Amino acid sequence: MRLRNKPWAKEKLMQNPKIVIQEPEHFRGRWSEAFAKKQLLHIEIGTGKGRFITGMAKQNPHINYIGIEKQESAIVSALDKILEEQLDNVKLLNVDASRLVEYFQKNDIERVYLNFSDPWPKNRHEKRRLTYKSFLRMYESVLVDGGEIHFKTDNQGLFEYSLKSFSEYGLLLKDISLDLHNSGMEDNVMTEYEEKFSAKGQRIYRCEVKYLNE
Amino acid sequence: MRLRNKPWAKEKLMQNPKIVIQEPEHFRGRWSEAFAKKQLLHIEIGTGKGRFITGMAKQNPHINYIGIEKQESAIVSALDKILEEQLDNVKLLNVDASRLVEYFQKNDIERVYLNFSDPWPKNRHEKRRLTYKSFLRMYESVLVDGGEIHFKTDNQGLFEYSLKSFSEYGLLLKDISLDLHNSGMEDNVMTEYEEKFSAKGQRIYRCEVKYLNE
Ligand SMILES: C[S@@+](CC[C@H](N)C(=O)[O-])C[C@H]1O[C@@H](n2cnc3c(N)ncnc32)[C@H](O)[C@@H]1O
Ligand SMILES: C[S@@+](CC[C@H](N)C(=O)[O-])C[C@H]1O[C@@H](n2cnc3c(N)ncnc32)[C@H](O)[C@@H]1O
Repeated sequence: MRLRNKPWAKEKLMQNPKIVIQEPEHFRGRWSEAFAKKQLLHIEIGTGKGRFITGMAKQNPHINYIGIEKQESAIVSALDKILEEQLDNVKLLNVDASRLVEYFQKNDIERVYLNFSDPWPKNRHEKRRLTYKSFLRMYESVLVDGGEIHFKTDNQGLFEYSLKSFSEYGLLLKDISLDLHNSGMEDNVMTEYEEKFSAKGQRIYRCEVKYLNE
Repeated sequence: MRLRNKPWAKEKLMQNPKIVIQEPEHFRGRWSEAFAKKQLLHIEIGTGKGRFITGMAKQNPHINYIGIEKQESAIVSALDKILEEQLDNVKLLNVDASRLVEYFQKNDIERVYLNFSDPWPKNRHEKRRLTYKSFLRMYESVLVDGGEIHFKTDNQGLFEYSLKSFSEYGLLLKDISLDLHNSGMEDNVMTEYEEKFSAKGQRIYRCEVKYLNE
């Protein structure tokens, strides 16, 4: 995501520690303490400007959400949305998702959302894709048994790759749409990228996969 | 497939028993005896007019092929192609594929091709789809361990359904293309339906799945 440099972003994030959690390792194994209510936790990795995670939080007040985004200049827009809507069931982490296990432990999370993840189309960058097996292993180590990944993208190559990667890892394909916006899906909350690409007439791919209990 | 009624088709099929095998149960467990050479066997279910199976047989002389098609008026065109090209590595069965286990036994077949199978879009017809679990079980019982299904279709709903069905059955997704004709695939042999639909600009979906050894 290319964004203007926002030198004031870091400070604004720091000034809202109730929403942008500053020492997430502190909540490892007890994330409900960071929220107003004790309820299931869903996270999104690569939240960008937060349209999806705040839309989901509004639509589903009985779920707690955490948006994870490494770019300050993007996540600060997510913070603005949360402040404006006064949502108490969504928090943000301005960290790199590769450090997930420092902040979460087994059973902390019920569902992981991946939306329009960077495609890393070159073969030699396969390991950076958020659906590469090492990431799938990482998600498994913080999800409940039977936890799920819900994935949307416009990128055909990344979607093809991810379906293979999920299958090789032994995940169950629960649901799939090869053209989300013409599939009559209800309650779809769009992301910033989704709005942009679907407005151009590009197809949106979506799937839900599940970790099977041993 | 809608075809003109061809009252002479049955007779023509009967008159070519070297190609259109009349008592396939006879070859169960020893199919190489029906062919000029002893080599791996691939079958196609729902062969239609035979463009694919004859094209494959020409392209891969080191493989034996069997095309299975229940409609006489379609399979007779496949017979014509085989006679014309004088191919000795492709045979035909004018039978219903639901009787596969009567004609084949475990390890007889290396690969099953499904091309543009009837979609049966209504939920109540799920069991008729050639990728429904009872068919997957049937293919397993005649394939070698590690045998494969290669599947092409233009039908989005059937493809989505089939990917889920394969996953639920525990098949490994080895390869997938969500837009075959724009994926730089080499050596693709088109079917009659594929030619028709791709000429209209419709996408062709393709995947390869593999039965895992226990
Ligand atoms: C292509 S953007 C999509 C943003 C948003 N999900 C959407 O659909 O509009 C991908 C985002 O993921 C973030 N990202 C990529 N890898 C990440 C990682 N390892 N940890 C945290 N954020 C990451 C990027 O900074 C970028 O903002
Ligand atoms: C939509 S057509 C596709 C024909 C060809 N594969 C192509 O791609 O051009 C499906 C064909 O499958 C045949 N078929 C469907 N179910 C079958 C079954 N159970 N056994 C044998 N043939 C079957 C139909 O008769 C029909 O010719």
